Amino acid sequence: MSEIKIIGSDIPNLPWQEPEGEAADLPLWRYQDNPIIGRNPIPNVARIFNSSVLPYEDGFIGVFRGDKTNGVPSIYLGRSKDAFHWNFNREPILFTDEKGNPFMPRYAYDPRLVKIEDTYYIMWCQDFYGASIGLAKTKNFKTFTRLENPFLPFNRNAVLFPRKINGNYLMLSRPSDSGHTPFGDIFVSESPDLVFWGRHRHVMSRGNEWWESLKIGGGAAPIETSEGWLLFYHGVSGTCNGYVYSIGAAILDRDNPSVVKYRCPTHLLTPEEWYEERGFVPNVTFPCAALADATTGRIAVYYGSADSYVSLAFARAEELIHYIIQNSVVTQDDTEIGLR
Amino acid sequence: MSEIKIIGSDIPNLPWQEPEGEAADLPLWRYQDNPIIGRNPIPNVARIFNSSVLPYEDGFIGVFRGDKTNGVPSIYLGRSKDAFHWNFNREPILFTDEKGNPFMPRYAYDPRLVKIEDTYYIMWCQDFYGASIGLAKTKNFKTFTRLENPFLPFNRNAVLFPRKINGNYLMLSRPSDSGHTPFGDIFVSESPDLVFWGRHRHVMSRGNEWWESLKIGGGAAPIETSEGWLLFYHGVSGTCNGYVYSIGAAILDRDNPSVVKYRCPTHLLTPEEWYEERGFVPNVTFPCAALADATTGRIAVYYGSADSYVSLAFARAEELIHYIIQNSVVTQDDTEIGLR
Repeated sequence: MSEIKIIGSDIPNLPWQEPEGEAADLPLWRYQDNPIIGRNPIPNVARIFNSSVLPYEDGFIGVFRGDKTNGVPSIYLGRSKDAFHWNFNREPILFTDEKGNPFMPRYAYDPRLVKIEDTYYIMWCQDFYGASIGLAKTKNFKTFTRLENPFLPFNRNAVLFPRKINGNYLMLSRPSDSGHTPFGDIFVSESPDLVFWGRHRHVMSRGNEWWESLKIGGGAAPIETSEGWLLFYHGVSGTCNGYVYSIGAAILDRDNPSVVKYRCPTHLLTPEEWYEERGFVPNVTFPCAALADATTGRIAVYYGSADSYVSLAFARAEELIHYIIQNSVVTQDDTEIGLR
Repeated sequence: MSEIKIIGSDIPNLPWQEPEGEAADLPLWRYQDNPIIGRNPIPNVARIFNSSVLPYEDGFIGVFRGDKTNGVPSIYLGRSKDAFHWNFNREPILFTDEKGNPFMPRYAYDPRLVKIEDTYYIMWCQDFYGASIGLAKTKNFKTFTRLENPFLPFNRNAVLFPRKINGNYLMLSRPSDSGHTPFGDIFVSESPDLVFWGRHRHVMSRGNEWWESLKIGGGAAPIETSEGWLLFYHGVSGTCNGYVYSIGAAILDRDNPSVVKYRCPTHLLTPEEWYEERGFVPNVTFPCAALADATTGRIAVYYGSADSYVSLAFARAEELIHYIIQNSVVTQDDTEIGLR
């Protein structure tokens, strides 16, 4: 195997902590001062979790799922100098339509933030007569313009690739039902214009291993590497006492991301710490962002913990990708082009 | 109300039977010799039902759901001189990809047939790593070329409008789950090219009335009239002994079909006859085609009965549409543009 490289920008101020003790043997290790965002982070918001961040200007910016004290989730903007400590706007992001008129989702959760060329895109789950994907763009984090809802209900866990592939935008998503969805595979769809979507392909199936046997869903925006697109995703196990959400990873073909080249059969991180096992929804680790520094190969994963906190974990691209490749198990569903 | 007109072609040889007795008071009445297609219509096919027909050359042609004796459904081509009596090909329609290579769905059911300009389109439900919509085109009923699957799973009951609206193709569909789907509204989606789809809008909700309180789904291709698009659809009631499928009707705005102008709160036809109450799935009347003769205003509805037979019912456009308008009940979900 040739040297593994991240294909992307440098993030010299990437948040980072070397592993200590037993963590030194893990491909993905926790930040020791997790969670980085605790309960009641701003007035009227009980919990911030399942959130996504990017470098911006001389620091970082992010879109955060904030569950208000009435239980309804909205998306809040946050800023940080060091990507560990965050300040949040007290009001949810104001989305407008293309004419500039307010156009707020009735609820909005699990946002992802992706930069393509000079534009930032936010995608989230919202009510579209049923749970489905909302999409908006901004260039300045002051005005946020909603675009067409890319898909029919029911869908969750959408995330754009950070660049066009073969001339089109690509979006991962996880078709679902209207409830707590006891099934779910990851698909990818193409769009020439972010209005019309098609050429849908199946990417990967639930069910390879028990930890992800109930459903899976795209997590962080894929990271481009010399081996393919590194995707952190969540896998769910159904137990007699509810769902358990773990973090897994796979590597998708660079030109045809519906083809899974490698898939790690073991979870990389599963609820073990108090902030993952205890909370509004116990036993959830849910990745929504992964920052990567091309020069050092350092990766920082932001994940929601127990639907109550934001936490951080770290990896080195080369070691992690070696780990995935060496342990990889893929099925025909994973490796085929995904069209029936 | 001005005179109601069908906007479309003449079908002088439309199948027709005047109502007799009590049927004279009904807006939609049954053909007295139903079902027109009985059990075991061709070798190895146990039941033909939920099928769709159009005029073709000097007679009629159709795509028929045939459940084989192994239980798996496929689509069969049928031809008829009078639209009552049908002859079927013994093998399912051979679908190919754009290069002409065989590309068969693993299963295919509930096909609809729609002509737009000089091309015939077939859409059906099939396996796409979950139930979703398949789409194919033909000009000669000899070669059938599959197009991109328009939507992600899970979806059923897709039907194209018979002409472009505002320059785009429009397709109704009913997002669902992976099973027997105990919910479901009708949506409409646009496409400039039948490859990429978007501008999804909610059309109408289940739940107005008990007979359609569980789910609804588009049925026949909409018929253009001076009052709007006349849509025959199915509505489902959940009982302690299973689902009951009835036939309803609504009228959609001609330029913005996501807006329901009128909706009949009562079913037009519900399982009452032996061929609707008895069969592989009892208590199903399921419309998949409606032929209309512009000059006379005569309408013939083809509907599947009990997942076992094909049956016919008739209406006069003017009387039916008056009935719908006079009884109409619409909710905000129905009349709004359908974007959230």
